[in-house]
Amino acid sequence: MEPPIRIAIAGHGNLGRGVEAALAKNPDMQLVGIYTRRPPAQLAPLHAGTAVHAMAALPEHADRIDVLILCGGSKEDLPEQGPALAALFNTVDSFDTHARIPEYFAAVDAPARANAKTALISAGWDPGMFSINRVIGEALLPDGATYTFWGKGLSQGHSDAIRRVPGVAGGVQYTLPVPEAVEQVRNGTRPTLDTRQKHTRECFVVLQAGADAEAVRRTIAGMPHYFADYDTTVNFISAEELRRDHGAMPHGGFVIRSGNTSAGNAQVIEYGLKLDSNPEFTASVLVAYARAVHRLQRAGQYGAKTVLDVPPGLLSPKSAEQLRAEQL
Amino acid sequence: MEPPIRIAIAGHGNLGRGVEAALAKNPDMQLVGIYTRRPPAQLAPLHAGTAVHAMAALPEHADRIDVLILCGGSKEDLPEQGPALAALFNTVDSFDTHARIPEYFAAVDAPARANAKTALISAGWDPGMFSINRVIGEALLPDGATYTFWGKGLSQGHSDAIRRVPGVAGGVQYTLPVPEAVEQVRNGTRPTLDTRQKHTRECFVVLQAGADAEAVRRTIAGMPHYFADYDTTVNFISAEELRRDHGAMPHGGFVIRSGNTSAGNAQVIEYGLKLDSNPEFTASVLVAYARAVHRLQRAGQYGAKTVLDVPPGLLSPKSAEQLRAEQL
Repeated sequence: MEPPIRIAIAGHGNLGRGVEAALAKNPDMQLVGIYTRRPPAQLAPLHAGTAVHAMAALPEHADRIDVLILCGGSKEDLPEQGPALAALFNTVDSFDTHARIPEYFAAVDAPARANAKTALISAGWDPGMFSINRVIGEALLPDGATYTFWGKGLSQGHSDAIRRVPGVAGGVQYTLPVPEAVEQVRNGTRPTLDTRQKHTRECFVVLQAGADAEAVRRTIAGMPHYFADYDTTVNFISAEELRRDHGAMPHGGFVIRSGNTSAGNAQVIEYGLKLDSNPEFTASVLVAYARAVHRLQRAGQYGAKTVLDVPPGLLSPKSAEQLRAEQL
Repeated sequence: MEPPIRIAIAGHGNLGRGVEAALAKNPDMQLVGIYTRRPPAQLAPLHAGTAVHAMAALPEHADRIDVLILCGGSKEDLPEQGPALAALFNTVDSFDTHARIPEYFAAVDAPARANAKTALISAGWDPGMFSINRVIGEALLPDGATYTFWGKGLSQGHSDAIRRVPGVAGGVQYTLPVPEAVEQVRNGTRPTLDTRQKHTRECFVVLQAGADAEAVRRTIAGMPHYFADYDTTVNFISAEELRRDHGAMPHGGFVIRSGNTSAGNAQVIEYGLKLDSNPEFTASVLVAYARAVHRLQRAGQYGAKTVLDVPPGLLSPKSAEQLRAEQL
């Protein structure tokens, strides 16, 4: 038996808590500590015995940790933490600002290579599992079209945008795929779909006392980039209803590749996720890639990596031999 | 620009013809020849200009071919051809006798390693794409259950079994997933399903003149292994109807992983294929893996490989950099 892979968590928001939960389901890994910028005593780990340390203690703990899972946000935390920590640790993160991935990859790659570390960036489901399916789908059916649909799911960014509207006391936003569009794509017709035809947006909003509901509705529906290009529904609810009915973080979606292998033969590949908890699923992906990162680094494959660089078998605790016998 | 990858095809049945069609859609590859055990002049390639050679000419053509795609059957052809040809060529095949994969892997691995070649075995969709999804699903959701459903699709093995029944002049068999079982699994309930609860079998049979329909029906439905464990429907049709309505080779299915990341949160991953042509899709998978094999061999990764050993990015004609910028 190999000794367990020693994992640490940097950052203890929803994602960090999800990683704790996921590690409990993977007996070949061991959680050796949680690192936080808050005062460590304020943090309540899932298991009372888990060590909690200040983020600043990370460098001196480098020899206790095989893989560090970065659970910070893509906007403020990872652009700074990713490159700094990849010089000291093997890392896994969920950097998800698609447009800035090449830049982030380069920033992490140099320190990781210089220090013989392996840093897996942008794991999760999109980017992540969905990316794998976009790439494989296109490779298998080059004469085709790829469609990504999201939802039904809670969008954190759009919920934040709603909450910044004057007169709004609280609220959440769900992204929904348009069922007719999904049906067309599944049937292999390869439709051309604009933004409005693929998704709708549904908001549940709590008004501040005395706020003008119609004005709030117009402001939300007209927000450029976030809502203006979509059919948006705004529902007004009470603070109690918001708490009671909208506390979960479901999400999901589909990647569909529709193509032809010859004139008469259409082929459709569909990958779909139906998630009760977006952060817990994302965390489970990070944990499986932590296992792969540990193996890649031990095999001398240093530098930044993405999910597209990782053989599927490395995600499993089973040996290649066992996988061939049981699951191929 | 890299020169095109020089591909040859060994065997020109449905699968070999599918590889020809797939290569026509991949401009970074070039079909340099088809090798057959039939008299080469009898074979009609898709494009009139394609060179056709006797299988026996393969060894002397070794330096013209980057990757040889083996399109023979798993029962008679591949157990012999796979190990012999892996000593001379980089190869890709669709060996699909699940229980014998470890033995076949070992038989191909030794000659490939000894000759610095790379041999990718058991590509296709099951084994193949479905295997990848079984392995990743289990790695992401270790507390869960995996379900594979096949169909609606034409089963070659079961159609052959029908045709061997006395009194049968012709026939085909379709495998169908039981919709209620699929629904239960999609809803995350993790049901325990036996063979009969997962699939039904539907046969379309042309009787020989004077045959006893009821006796044929009983013989088919009672065939151990093939039909006895399933609810089987036998429909009698005319030779004309068989030709007109049952000439296509559709198939498909789903791999569903249903699991929990915590007590309250269920997560469901579904990968599905809806294929107008089973052999053309399988062929498209072989062609994408031929690209990966070429790259693996040039990187010094010799020996037998499976789809579980191949990073997804290697299947794409695009560079890792381009994939990160466009598809991650």
